[in-house]
Amino acid sequence: MRVAGISRHTVWHDPADPAAVYIIDQRALPFRFVIERLTTVAEVAAALRDMHVRGAGCIGATAAWGMYLAAGEMPEALAAAGTALMQTRPTAVNLAWAVQRQLRVLAGCSTAEEKVTAARREAEVICQDDIAACRRIGDYGLGIIQEIAARRPGPVNILTHCNAGWLAFVDIGSATASIYAAHDAGIPVHVWVDETRPRNQGARLTAWELSQHGVPHTIIADNAGGHLMQRGQVDLVITGADRVTRAGDVANKIGTYLKALAARDCGVPFYVALPSSTFDLSIADGQADIPIEERSADEVLFMEGLDAGGKETAVRITTAATGAANPAFDVTPARLITGLITEHGIVVPAEQAILRVLAGS
Amino acid sequence: MRVAGISRHTVWHDPADPAAVYIIDQRALPFRFVIERLTTVAEVAAALRDMHVRGAGCIGATAAWGMYLAAGEMPEALAAAGTALMQTRPTAVNLAWAVQRQLRVLAGCSTAEEKVTAARREAEVICQDDIAACRRIGDYGLGIIQEIAARRPGPVNILTHCNAGWLAFVDIGSATASIYAAHDAGIPVHVWVDETRPRNQGARLTAWELSQHGVPHTIIADNAGGHLMQRGQVDLVITGADRVTRAGDVANKIGTYLKALAARDCGVPFYVALPSSTFDLSIADGQADIPIEERSADEVLFMEGLDAGGKETAVRITTAATGAANPAFDVTPARLITGLITEHGIVVPAEQAILRVLAGS
Repeated sequence: MRVAGISRHTVWHDPADPAAVYIIDQRALPFRFVIERLTTVAEVAAALRDMHVRGAGCIGATAAWGMYLAAGEMPEALAAAGTALMQTRPTAVNLAWAVQRQLRVLAGCSTAEEKVTAARREAEVICQDDIAACRRIGDYGLGIIQEIAARRPGPVNILTHCNAGWLAFVDIGSATASIYAAHDAGIPVHVWVDETRPRNQGARLTAWELSQHGVPHTIIADNAGGHLMQRGQVDLVITGADRVTRAGDVANKIGTYLKALAARDCGVPFYVALPSSTFDLSIADGQADIPIEERSADEVLFMEGLDAGGKETAVRITTAATGAANPAFDVTPARLITGLITEHGIVVPAEQAILRVLAGS
Repeated sequence: MRVAGISRHTVWHDPADPAAVYIIDQRALPFRFVIERLTTVAEVAAALRDMHVRGAGCIGATAAWGMYLAAGEMPEALAAAGTALMQTRPTAVNLAWAVQRQLRVLAGCSTAEEKVTAARREAEVICQDDIAACRRIGDYGLGIIQEIAARRPGPVNILTHCNAGWLAFVDIGSATASIYAAHDAGIPVHVWVDETRPRNQGARLTAWELSQHGVPHTIIADNAGGHLMQRGQVDLVITGADRVTRAGDVANKIGTYLKALAARDCGVPFYVALPSSTFDLSIADGQADIPIEERSADEVLFMEGLDAGGKETAVRITTAATGAANPAFDVTPARLITGLITEHGIVVPAEQAILRVLAGS
């Protein structure tokens, strides 16, 4: 997607600078556009853990490039490098998926040079696959939006939570893929952007993405989506996913479950968009078996933004007498989900349907 | 309740200063404790509109004292004064209820002096009634908490949204009444405090109240409550209400509906605590007929807190390319509510039961 008119990916490699990989440091968005150069596994692990990059596809691709750096930096300790990367974020399945894919490829190499070459190629393939999957997700989701647009005049109102936009992948995004596809096809869309406390990925990242691409959108407090659905102001909900079980339960950013409940109560279709790499077939029961990352209380207790002088500032929103809990994800049961939009088509969230579409892929 | 050990009300009159009424300016909490002296109807209207005070009971009592000031300031234009006060906040029914109660009393007075005396007495009665109602609500709600505490060891985990604490009334509060009663009775309670974006009344006011009173509590993002309920970490939800229809539909702070949906989905009891002055028997269908206040987008786009130097600072959370919508309330349908805790007992949210309890009051 374009940033100030220039086409960008979230993570990339420059053949002219083989010792490095590049990422957009998303912590600075929307206020500053910062490119970060990473040259060691430790730097990649820190970028993952401290959320310079985030989002299922983006952390998978970044970890894949981290294993490329590992092949040059510690060719005899690749398993340890992979473990270090995987431990940075426990909920998203794409991270482990990308590391394990690299480890399988690297296991077939003998020399250090072969390892570097193979890991670079594999990381490139992972990135290209990520982009291609998002593009196909957009094509499938476009059909849903077209159907709604055909029923009545006016923009199609789509609510999304957190950021499953191009910043969460290498490009295009999952939840946003259909939105960009519809906008580019001339279908009028308007996006309700959940602020997405505590880290405000909606207000900071999704809103920024959409504004860079010219898609009409409005930020709302996370509390507001249910009311808008009650009033008929939401035609469709599309979110991303961090991990989806074989039964179709969806782990995604904290608060997704509440929006799914409201959508069900109000008869609003609730879709989850994901590349098939986000499925974790080893898990059936999302409630019981998906680990939920508990993050720092400071993410709740502080808010970041620009002060009156335009300076980036963190403010403490309560007194020191009060602490906070910060579960980062929740699990939306399959029964609340209308469909899973994958690169292989739209799937009902049920085990047989999921296994069938993955087997046919 | 006590502030730094001193017993306080949210709004009061000092006979030694008959030309004034006093409020706690809640905008400064939790960072500063500020008492504001109001001497004109216009100042009271501004305090209501700009939310120096907020919360159903507190704005009713403040408006009642506003009418007392009106009796001295504009005894020939009391209807206009009442209209000016009522127009400041359209959703909460207590405001109109208190003004109309004063207008009925004032209609029976002939001289300006009689008007001032009658309005002062009526405002005092409204405040005393508010406190007494909250105390009885606490007694009824205490029974619910005792039952849960008797079933198993450990603290009773109660989730609340926004602030229906003593700051929202003259004293004690509605949702917090049972919590304070249980805490004071030695029953271990722990409160999950919804931050309550956009104005953060949970993080700012409820957390402050609870910390002043020594009640264990934890702030959470508004997104987190559903997840905590799924994991069995919430025994009970208690919220307040800004207006309740004859059918038991509840208008309350935006986001209440989402918590009610989650409570229903997870089998968690969901109670709404309110003095009977919050019922609006003229309305049956909450969805269709309760006006929902749309407040300034800036409440979403800015967050207030203390910067690193301890200075109160507002930060803009997104770029100027993005706007916001800010509906301030939503309507939770009666079908999602376990019971209404009133000063006359706990009522199922259904028309006949509500009319019966009000008729017997």
